[in-house]
Amino acid sequence: MSDTSAYENDPAFALHRGGKLEVRSTVPVRDNDDLALAYTPGVARVCSAIAETPALADTYTWVPNVVAVVSDGTAVLGLGDIGPSAAMPVMEGKALLFKEFGGVDAVPLCLACTDVDELVETVARLAPSFGGINLEDISAPRCFEVEERLRERLDIPVFHDDQHGTAIVVLAALRNAARLTGRTLGDLRAVVAGAGASGVAVSRILLEAGIGDIAVADSKGMLYAGREGLNPIKEALARDTNRAGHSGSTEEALAGADVFVGLSGSTVSERAIASMAEGAIVFALSNPTPEVEPAVAALHAAVVATGRSDFPNQINNVLAFPGVFRGAFDVRASTITENMKVAAADALADVVGDDLRADYVIPSPFDARVAPAVSAAVAAQARADGVARA
Amino acid sequence: MSDTSAYENDPAFALHRGGKLEVRSTVPVRDNDDLALAYTPGVARVCSAIAETPALADTYTWVPNVVAVVSDGTAVLGLGDIGPSAAMPVMEGKALLFKEFGGVDAVPLCLACTDVDELVETVARLAPSFGGINLEDISAPRCFEVEERLRERLDIPVFHDDQHGTAIVVLAALRNAARLTGRTLGDLRAVVAGAGASGVAVSRILLEAGIGDIAVADSKGMLYAGREGLNPIKEALARDTNRAGHSGSTEEALAGADVFVGLSGSTVSERAIASMAEGAIVFALSNPTPEVEPAVAALHAAVVATGRSDFPNQINNVLAFPGVFRGAFDVRASTITENMKVAAADALADVVGDDLRADYVIPSPFDARVAPAVSAAVAAQARADGVARA
Repeated sequence: MSDTSAYENDPAFALHRGGKLEVRSTVPVRDNDDLALAYTPGVARVCSAIAETPALADTYTWVPNVVAVVSDGTAVLGLGDIGPSAAMPVMEGKALLFKEFGGVDAVPLCLACTDVDELVETVARLAPSFGGINLEDISAPRCFEVEERLRERLDIPVFHDDQHGTAIVVLAALRNAARLTGRTLGDLRAVVAGAGASGVAVSRILLEAGIGDIAVADSKGMLYAGREGLNPIKEALARDTNRAGHSGSTEEALAGADVFVGLSGSTVSERAIASMAEGAIVFALSNPTPEVEPAVAALHAAVVATGRSDFPNQINNVLAFPGVFRGAFDVRASTITENMKVAAADALADVVGDDLRADYVIPSPFDARVAPAVSAAVAAQARADGVARA
Repeated sequence: MSDTSAYENDPAFALHRGGKLEVRSTVPVRDNDDLALAYTPGVARVCSAIAETPALADTYTWVPNVVAVVSDGTAVLGLGDIGPSAAMPVMEGKALLFKEFGGVDAVPLCLACTDVDELVETVARLAPSFGGINLEDISAPRCFEVEERLRERLDIPVFHDDQHGTAIVVLAALRNAARLTGRTLGDLRAVVAGAGASGVAVSRILLEAGIGDIAVADSKGMLYAGREGLNPIKEALARDTNRAGHSGSTEEALAGADVFVGLSGSTVSERAIASMAEGAIVFALSNPTPEVEPAVAALHAAVVATGRSDFPNQINNVLAFPGVFRGAFDVRASTITENMKVAAADALADVVGDDLRADYVIPSPFDARVAPAVSAAVAAQARADGVARA
């Protein structure tokens, strides 16, 4: 065993001792009679029935309620490429949130491979054991191809949470921020800093939802049609965004903009925030350090949100993923459609209802109404989209 | 959902509804403070520490207590190649037995591939997430190569239970049966019917433990040196066994033999059992139908064992695998050595102690002394063999 005395005073380490999960039986095994039902010979009858009628696996195994939380450890939180073993505490945490908030059983799987083909093959081979796949902390742009190929190949939900979980919660908060300031999404011009997994997905869902215009920046500045050296994902995004043709920095693009969404780990000056339009909406989501101090942003903006639990309006993925999978699993959805993501965002926004205030555009993760509202909306939309199987 | 009304009167189906496992949190998540420790930002400090000092994963993740129960569904119970989905109820059952009897967390993984290279690659990529690998119900002879290659490649225990779990329990029961009849293993000449996973491993552990002689049969008759068309595993076994040079049927070889171990799913006549030596030991282990009716065997044999819970002397792998992994995990063993398997068998045999009788050569799976005895012996032997890391 390693010497762990250096960590003993940190409550996070104390809490993590021994890990954060366990696998338990949901059936009794007290005597030979129990064993004869849960294991041989009784189990053989169940296996035979599933071999004959594969759909019975939905009823007589735990599979339809189990999601694999899959990472290769290449883009973990703000820590970057720390490898599969060091990523495990995050994946365990994700798994426990799935269970606590969505009643979804989740198994953390950190893989010792980073090649796209290998990731896709490995997850595809695991698929018979899972009702869905939650991809996590896989670096861009590989994450886009991994998800796309798995979505094509598998008939169960595949969901890269860093993309879509964030996108759903941002859209929900933005809908409410727009409502609070008397506007619709179509009235808004947004600047998104960050063109990684979350930046791309947030931009895509805002376009889907009808945002007025949006301009996206990566570390080298704004994405615009014709910019040299863009990967295919950014090239497509450049084509679909930035109608104003911004080609400079994020700060320059913010002049007169209505919305800032920070997903980049960079910083934005007070001057740039001050240059935004009247009624500005600032989502400074980098963790642990927001792109701009919330108190400073509040001097110039009508609504401020962060990724942190110690400020109002926390944009936290846990508001989305447990309910999204709960809803998808409840109707045995074969996939998660764009409509289902937008429905999740709308349901999440609606939880706030008449209590809407500048410091309350998004509910708390501990609001017990959240997961049921999101799951019901996702399940209904799956039915409407024809992807429900139960 | 499928119509399940046809199954509702079978208690095995009722028990399997919804599956048999769940994943739960072992830490509280009641409020933002809890969340800040179990998830962001607290979890980042734990991840960073593991990235810097990989051995800390042993202390701060659940990994060292988790075994993957891996199958490709090609040799499930007596059902054969029913595929990964239909195999899941067995793997769930295995997982719950790991927890109930050994306190080991186990994740059932049924893989959609049967190629040896693909199985090895897939499991190797999963290895950062697990403290050990329990291979299950993979058909022979592929199972031998899969296990061997994974044992070479990984620095965590890899254990094909159909082989070694069965072998450990058979050895334990045979030691006690020999003691009861006033003999040592070296005095015994055995016939093993079946040269699949369990037949090969049982033969190997009996050779390791010093059995007098042993002859093994596959579906075409006895294995002997020079028999045409043997695969490499059987060829090696033919070289190391059958000093008497039997070349006919199992029944012919049984004339004058001291021990019969049936692992074949075939049948053996009363006449053949009657032809065995005085004080014969008959382990008719096929499930659900033993090779010979226990009551019939008892007319001619001193000790009779089966694989069934409704007869005395049940040879049940659950007597071995939970304690084997518990012991290996307790000392962070890098592998499971041959000595550790023999130590497990000896410890299991010793549980019977002075209560030894013809109908009690092996303890009950529900004897609470079993797993602690096996795990202590396995852990001690791991230390002695220099494969313990804690």
